[in-house]
Amino acid sequence: MKDSFYKYICELQDTIAAALELADGVATFKEDLWKRPEGGGGRTRVLEGGAVFEKGGVNISGVHGTLPKSMLAHLNVSEASFYACGLSLVLHPKNPMAPTVHANWRYFEMYDLNGKIVDQWFGGGLDLTPYYLFEEDAVHFHQICKNVCDQNDPKFYPEYKKKCDSYFWNSHRNEARGVGGLFFDYLKPSSEKSLKQWYTFVTDVANNFLEAYLPVLNKRKDLPYTPEQKKWQEIRRGRYVEFNLVHDKGTLFGLKTNGRIESILMSLPPTVQWHYDYHPKIKSREEELMKVIKKPRNWV
Amino acid sequence: MKDSFYKYICELQDTIAAALELADGVATFKEDLWKRPEGGGGRTRVLEGGAVFEKGGVNISGVHGTLPKSMLAHLNVSEASFYACGLSLVLHPKNPMAPTVHANWRYFEMYDLNGKIVDQWFGGGLDLTPYYLFEEDAVHFHQICKNVCDQNDPKFYPEYKKKCDSYFWNSHRNEARGVGGLFFDYLKPSSEKSLKQWYTFVTDVANNFLEAYLPVLNKRKDLPYTPEQKKWQEIRRGRYVEFNLVHDKGTLFGLKTNGRIESILMSLPPTVQWHYDYHPKIKSREEELMKVIKKPRNWV
Repeated sequence: MKDSFYKYICELQDTIAAALELADGVATFKEDLWKRPEGGGGRTRVLEGGAVFEKGGVNISGVHGTLPKSMLAHLNVSEASFYACGLSLVLHPKNPMAPTVHANWRYFEMYDLNGKIVDQWFGGGLDLTPYYLFEEDAVHFHQICKNVCDQNDPKFYPEYKKKCDSYFWNSHRNEARGVGGLFFDYLKPSSEKSLKQWYTFVTDVANNFLEAYLPVLNKRKDLPYTPEQKKWQEIRRGRYVEFNLVHDKGTLFGLKTNGRIESILMSLPPTVQWHYDYHPKIKSREEELMKVIKKPRNWV
Repeated sequence: MKDSFYKYICELQDTIAAALELADGVATFKEDLWKRPEGGGGRTRVLEGGAVFEKGGVNISGVHGTLPKSMLAHLNVSEASFYACGLSLVLHPKNPMAPTVHANWRYFEMYDLNGKIVDQWFGGGLDLTPYYLFEEDAVHFHQICKNVCDQNDPKFYPEYKKKCDSYFWNSHRNEARGVGGLFFDYLKPSSEKSLKQWYTFVTDVANNFLEAYLPVLNKRKDLPYTPEQKKWQEIRRGRYVEFNLVHDKGTLFGLKTNGRIESILMSLPPTVQWHYDYHPKIKSREEELMKVIKKPRNWV
């Protein structure tokens, strides 16, 4: 399974990167291959200063080794080695009318001292972070999420939509990171689903990413905007930074397992602002967004 | 002691805020009084868009209540109530030639179930974060730190200078936040020092803050700079954000004890940039700074 999934994410990185270069029209991805001293490595692809994307990355990695103490405690095991691979992407469009998007699909194996697999699971999802609310965009994104879930199991969408809303919650601000999407973790073989079925589900989700995001991007990337609207985007990007550095378990896992810092932190937005106690004007479009951010909504 | 120290930091906030308004010449502090639902509150003073300071805050707070579980584990006790008060300041000048400065002086009491003091200590310090290296500035700042330490105990400066270098260490980047200063914590009454002596030391340090920082600021605030140098400042400010959100125990304490978010996060810089794998040019002034950041130096 680990070889199949790694091969899959390698090809997916090519597909997604090619589609994004086409959508941008100007910028191309810069590729960095890296090795992790303790085992494994990755292929980082980052694009900056494009016509459409101010910054974006589509990274894959496959790492293995002994789990650090902090992670052992987190996973409630005493000693183990692990293998983890996945694709992570974050895209920050220039135009504040176009939403930021994040997606990740990953596979994890844990071994006992004899190298036998003692646990294995898939995780991942995708979520959308708009700066201005276009309801039809959130509906489209969630509809694609729901369709692909329903093809696999009608129970999935409500469950993973809800998990997404709780995971991408900036608890210190009491607000969501964005309008959500899907989030799932610890998808393990059971009497109901085989590992192969989870593989099918996760790759189905990943194969639908471009269809979920590109139509939204294409509708918004050329809309006119003011410097004040750009400022609002940069302020909201600050919340994105706060989530990733304070709450995100993926970032934490990367930092604790001596991952490649530049690949992990490529998710941080290119330009960001923090103002003291900033609040949007009553009945403004900015306040309209905040209402949805404060109270996650059902979109489909 | 808690009343004396709280009164002291109230007056100190007035003194420092007045001196900073004078140094800026244009901006004035906006004051917010706030209450913490679980007990206590604070007086936040923030200034933005000044002639000299792009953003800055000088805050005091005094909070009390039951320690959250996460803090109990951290302090290795089973159940307790606490009182904590302190002054925190962070100043982000507009001019990239002028360094950011941070300082904090705090007092903590812990009580058993009968309300008896079971532990009490002072903590704090001050540290300088330049974007361009002027050796004489680092020397001046450290010389004032050393002088005030030496008046109290010749052992203090080497010890607290070293603690500062280790505390303000961005371990995931393997670099210091800046050129350091002083950092001390858990200054408790002992056979060598009474609580009164620690009070004298901490207030001596705090009383010398303006003398440590203002001469440096005044030398640099009007130097000419290029847009590229401003960009470098904003990139380095990104590291400041990373430290505060990933590593800083003060920020963590604030977030975990339901502190006022806007007061805690006033430390974040006004404008920040993150570029993928950015490195300054060989033999540039930016690279000169990085050499000092990668390997803390003795300044006096």
